Amino acid sequence: MSKKKTRSLQTVGAIGEFGLVEWIKRHTPKLKGVRRGIGDDTAVLRDANGQNQLFTIDTIVENIDFRTCEATPEEIGWKALAVNLSDIAAMGGVPTVAVVSLTLPRNTSLRFVKRFYAGMRRAAEKYHVALVGGDLSRGPKVSCSVALLGQTLKHRTIYRTGARVGDVIGVTGHLGGSILGKHLRFLPRIKEGQFLARAGAHTMIDISDGLIQDLGHLLERKGLGFELDKATVPVSGAACKLARGNPHEAIRHALFDGEDFELLFTMKPAAFRRLTPRWKKQFSIPLTAIGYVRRASKSSRTINGTNGFQHF
Amino acid sequence: MSKKKTRSLQTVGAIGEFGLVEWIKRHTPKLKGVRRGIGDDTAVLRDANGQNQLFTIDTIVENIDFRTCEATPEEIGWKALAVNLSDIAAMGGVPTVAVVSLTLPRNTSLRFVKRFYAGMRRAAEKYHVALVGGDLSRGPKVSCSVALLGQTLKHRTIYRTGARVGDVIGVTGHLGGSILGKHLRFLPRIKEGQFLARAGAHTMIDISDGLIQDLGHLLERKGLGFELDKATVPVSGAACKLARGNPHEAIRHALFDGEDFELLFTMKPAAFRRLTPRWKKQFSIPLTAIGYVRRASKSSRTINGTNGFQHF
Repeated sequence: MSKKKTRSLQTVGAIGEFGLVEWIKRHTPKLKGVRRGIGDDTAVLRDANGQNQLFTIDTIVENIDFRTCEATPEEIGWKALAVNLSDIAAMGGVPTVAVVSLTLPRNTSLRFVKRFYAGMRRAAEKYHVALVGGDLSRGPKVSCSVALLGQTLKHRTIYRTGARVGDVIGVTGHLGGSILGKHLRFLPRIKEGQFLARAGAHTMIDISDGLIQDLGHLLERKGLGFELDKATVPVSGAACKLARGNPHEAIRHALFDGEDFELLFTMKPAAFRRLTPRWKKQFSIPLTAIGYVRRASKSSRTINGTNGFQHF
Repeated sequence: MSKKKTRSLQTVGAIGEFGLVEWIKRHTPKLKGVRRGIGDDTAVLRDANGQNQLFTIDTIVENIDFRTCEATPEEIGWKALAVNLSDIAAMGGVPTVAVVSLTLPRNTSLRFVKRFYAGMRRAAEKYHVALVGGDLSRGPKVSCSVALLGQTLKHRTIYRTGARVGDVIGVTGHLGGSILGKHLRFLPRIKEGQFLARAGAHTMIDISDGLIQDLGHLLERKGLGFELDKATVPVSGAACKLARGNPHEAIRHALFDGEDFELLFTMKPAAFRRLTPRWKKQFSIPLTAIGYVRRASKSSRTINGTNGFQHF
């Protein structure tokens, strides 16, 4: 059997989510009017008014992203919109308008749909998003796709590329143990993302695959490594609870657990020092410097180990 | 048990797709900057340049909208984008940019994904749509959500409302029997939709639920009925094939089959007469007048019978 044939028989489970994204990226033509296509938190389109339009889509699927026995319908509705809001936050953007496609088994109760929609509306109202349309389909399991538009100023759009050697690595909130409930109820860091964009973040991402894996996405460019001070990583109460008092285990959760939906960014150390007092005035969640971007070398931690969440 | 409680125990199968859409519409606040929200083919947003921005989402689900044993992966990819293109066509719009969310079982072959994506890219290239981003999820069956942006001039956006008594009812192409294959390979009527918008269509929809049911959507306003001349309905070869030579049965297919994705519109009879010679020069598919919009009365056909495709 030729090599080509063998590869064609591979499954998506074998090649993995990132392998598949890479393949799609290579096979998608680049077009005018598109500042950033596949591979960032959102696509970035040129707007006639010098602004950037953000455009993103995300799907949550029953038994993968939530279980109907554990999550309330309101929480599922909240999460379906919030995962998209978090992508807009990671660009430093303002969310504006969403459309929703909901797939339901035939025997879904009307009560479920009403409570699901109440949860989604609550997120929409809190973050000033207009729900303007959508689509209903029948399917074997509950799943929900949301597409969301947003805006940023042209020079305040923060991409996944742009980290520089010497940058401080910062993170919002507390990390780890999201599986205990935060992944259903998290608050997308929209205002925080805009603040960090204005304060001079070079690069930013929302932590969905786990701190270490998402840091890898920010430092993908050859020649970049990082140095983390484990002792400074803001470990969440949930991570401690999961670790049952074992501090090493708790830090492991903070470093590798997915779906924290906190913002991870890099910026000049001086800019970070300047923003700290203003951050404390404006936000109640912590902002923590956890390390530095380094030139990749043998002593810098490699960023190739993918220990976070992969979809396949 | 109180009436309220009984209703809450209803399933989405019992209330039906349109009942659910009505409920969602009633429970969604209207917002500034949104010209048209839930209930039309696409949402219509105000643009700073006096243009309208169209925004739509649609999902296709395995075993509902396609079967992997009948459709090629290329056809499934084509259809996933084309159903959205058809919604833009029904507004008289130009499609611009899409994001794609693809849900796959773990054991899906890489070959399937590559062929699926080739089909979608072919549709994107043919209709000049930029595929700019997306999302991959794991799920029990293949499903694909596409969100699509488009544009129309403000005074050339054609809604589902706006039909007037005396309007001619027109339709593009041939109808019925789409299940034999057209539903996987249809050509969204983008250029045709723009032509009809310029030619003065009062209202327009793409036929996804069946001619009679979608005509009902155009004439929902109280006081509107219709008169169709069955003999003029352009019956497709596939409808004849399904009907095995029975002409009554063939017309039934043309009137009630879903997923034709042809355009159904109404306009002044004089405007229709004027456009006919230009249509013939520009397009190879037929444009047929099949009846008139009438004042609703006992003799006008009622539009309440829903014989088309409902998702639940």
